Amino acid sequence: MSRVTADMSVSADGFAAGPHQTLEKPFGDGPTDELHRWMFETPEENRAERDAITDAGAFIMGRNMFGPSRGEWDLDWRGWWGEDPPYHAPVFVLTHHERDDLPMAGGTTFHFVTGGIDEALKRAREAAGSRDVSIAGGAATTNQFLAAGLIDELRLHVAPVVLGAGERIFDGVSPRTLTLVSSRAASLVTHVVYRAGA
Amino acid sequence: MSRVTADMSVSADGFAAGPHQTLEKPFGDGPTDELHRWMFETPEENRAERDAITDAGAFIMGRNMFGPSRGEWDLDWRGWWGEDPPYHAPVFVLTHHERDDLPMAGGTTFHFVTGGIDEALKRAREAAGSRDVSIAGGAATTNQFLAAGLIDELRLHVAPVVLGAGERIFDGVSPRTLTLVSSRAASLVTHVVYRAGA
Repeated sequence: MSRVTADMSVSADGFAAGPHQTLEKPFGDGPTDELHRWMFETPEENRAERDAITDAGAFIMGRNMFGPSRGEWDLDWRGWWGEDPPYHAPVFVLTHHERDDLPMAGGTTFHFVTGGIDEALKRAREAAGSRDVSIAGGAATTNQFLAAGLIDELRLHVAPVVLGAGERIFDGVSPRTLTLVSSRAASLVTHVVYRAGA
Repeated sequence: MSRVTADMSVSADGFAAGPHQTLEKPFGDGPTDELHRWMFETPEENRAERDAITDAGAFIMGRNMFGPSRGEWDLDWRGWWGEDPPYHAPVFVLTHHERDDLPMAGGTTFHFVTGGIDEALKRAREAAGSRDVSIAGGAATTNQFLAAGLIDELRLHVAPVVLGAGERIFDGVSPRTLTLVSSRAASLVTHVVYRAGA
């Protein structure tokens, strides 16, 4: 069966985003640009980690990661990523509001799942075949999967910034032992990989 | 002038201790033994980081790091470390209650400071001369120094465990950019070093 992985860029104090997400500020208030500088300013140095993020056969994300709106869908909204999103695979979006499948260019199709994380994971596993299923975020969604013990490998990309508030990784996750797989420092980030369990 | 450094072993979710510290459980509830396994089970692999922790010319710690009691002093309490504490240098303990200096074996003397972090830092700098002043913890004390911008180099030793509650590093520290100095993975810990500022 395919593995379930999760990637998340976080601050040194564990926040994946600041508070108050809006259309203009997808990552909310605070110096959140610092979280992703490693991806855009030093791509060659971090090629392996960048490639791994989009290497899965299917993705799962929370609604807030797909867009800033809440409640009933604005059907004009097609995600933050333009017409050719970087996933190139099925993406299952957790939501309480039904919406038809949304095929994009490059092989990405957004599917909207109203049955919670179990249904999303079931459908993503079917779509991924032998490839990994990736939990793409945000923190609330990743924490739901962590709390349910459904993530096999967690890859944190820790940026040297303190955000002080926002959406925190591990919030609501009960005490547990992880296993450190690897850690690597690059100029603007520390990549830390954990496996579930002792 | 001497640098101010701080070392702290923390969980993957940033806790330096669980809740409910007692005499029997100095690090509180939860799987807190996991935080310090790297020190005791793989000392050779982490020799440089271990040596750096006690290399300072003077130390500052919070009262809760010195002992479990609160309020007026129990003069029979001489710290958690036995008669020869690992500091071998002056240690300034932040407290609201005066107490006479407490000389121990091996060059450690505990001094009790009622004037807050500024007085403690002034006295520690005088004692350290050209050597570093080390903020030894716990998290509340380190956070006071971080919030005041008084720490030059922060060395986190991140253990692969989730605690879920307790005393968290960076709590109450306002948003700010750090600089990543280095990161190294060992079997049971990731050592991450940050310098203050961009």
